[in-house]
Amino acid sequence: MEFPSKLIEEAVNQVSKLPGIGKKTALRLVLHLIRERPENTFALTDALNKLRSQIRYCKLCHNISDAEMCSICASHLRERSIVCVVEDTRDVMAIENTGQYKGLYHVLGGVISPINGIGPSELNIESLVSRLSAGDAGIREIILALSPTMEGDTTAFYINKRVQEFRVQVSTIARGVPVGGDLEFTDEVTLGRSILGRTQFS
Amino acid sequence: MEFPSKLIEEAVNQVSKLPGIGKKTALRLVLHLIRERPENTFALTDALNKLRSQIRYCKLCHNISDAEMCSICASHLRERSIVCVVEDTRDVMAIENTGQYKGLYHVLGGVISPINGIGPSELNIESLVSRLSAGDAGIREIILALSPTMEGDTTAFYINKRVQEFRVQVSTIARGVPVGGDLEFTDEVTLGRSILGRTQFS
Repeated sequence: MEFPSKLIEEAVNQVSKLPGIGKKTALRLVLHLIRERPENTFALTDALNKLRSQIRYCKLCHNISDAEMCSICASHLRERSIVCVVEDTRDVMAIENTGQYKGLYHVLGGVISPINGIGPSELNIESLVSRLSAGDAGIREIILALSPTMEGDTTAFYINKRVQEFRVQVSTIARGVPVGGDLEFTDEVTLGRSILGRTQFS
Repeated sequence: MEFPSKLIEEAVNQVSKLPGIGKKTALRLVLHLIRERPENTFALTDALNKLRSQIRYCKLCHNISDAEMCSICASHLRERSIVCVVEDTRDVMAIENTGQYKGLYHVLGGVISPINGIGPSELNIESLVSRLSAGDAGIREIILALSPTMEGDTTAFYINKRVQEFRVQVSTIARGVPVGGDLEFTDEVTLGRSILGRTQFS
């Protein structure tokens, strides 16, 4: 692609580094910005710069936070004996949106993925172990809420092994037919698991 | 959507103002940036800031340009008697990529769209008339290369009317069946026009 201006070219190159954005989309976004008022662009870049330079993580659960401790870990209303282990912030937001969970979280910052060079030491697993080994923490249960992929399963197995020495119950979120889903369109693996993991009809 | 941090919220709000990017995609992009090295974010914001503050437009054709006059208008190899009227820079790039056109351009900066509050005075139409009225310009033909939409057609009609007083030929790019397209999947309007606008088989 040949650009009419070096400024456009550099901007398109930078924007197209974002995941899921190719050169054509990047050009569309960049041309949108130069059609709009300059203040809009500056507000965008300012927000991103501030984010990247001032972002902090909760010292306990590693979730993104404005303070030293995130609002969930700091809350007195949460049940402190349950910790839900998730991959990233989006999962925390998704689970919070359900309104079904009142415990704490532990954000791993990813999953074990040898193909991407991510081993257990790149993730916040040691700090989960520290949370458990701190005697007064009183954690009774760990819920592994990881994606049902190979990487997610590997990570779940690894964490389960690492926490064996502590007296905590390790559970995993239920896998089965999605609510509102159609049985005949559910894949065999999911349907098979949903039969094996059947629960009492109450 | 509730965010764990004000910084994230502000960044997501700003990114989701871009066309075609919703809150979920914005959050994905923002989380990507904070996982990457800070320099990557700063390179992106720097490129956008530079673009927005230093961008210039060619004084003749209004295309984006690094200098007072763009490389096409400044070139001695281009045919100066033909001017191709397009909506924006992307169209110039697309036509340049064909390698089939050696004339000059005139970038309108949009099309007439009453629903979006864009009238003829918001576009670079007066400067096109000035280019024609400058006696020594020697422009013989204007090619209207606008999108085959209602807005594009309206703009084409308007420009055609405005340039009637000058002795220039006004043409429009051919409309018909796309090369490589399948006849049976072409819509009736396009197919109808392609029959009406049939050309000599050479």
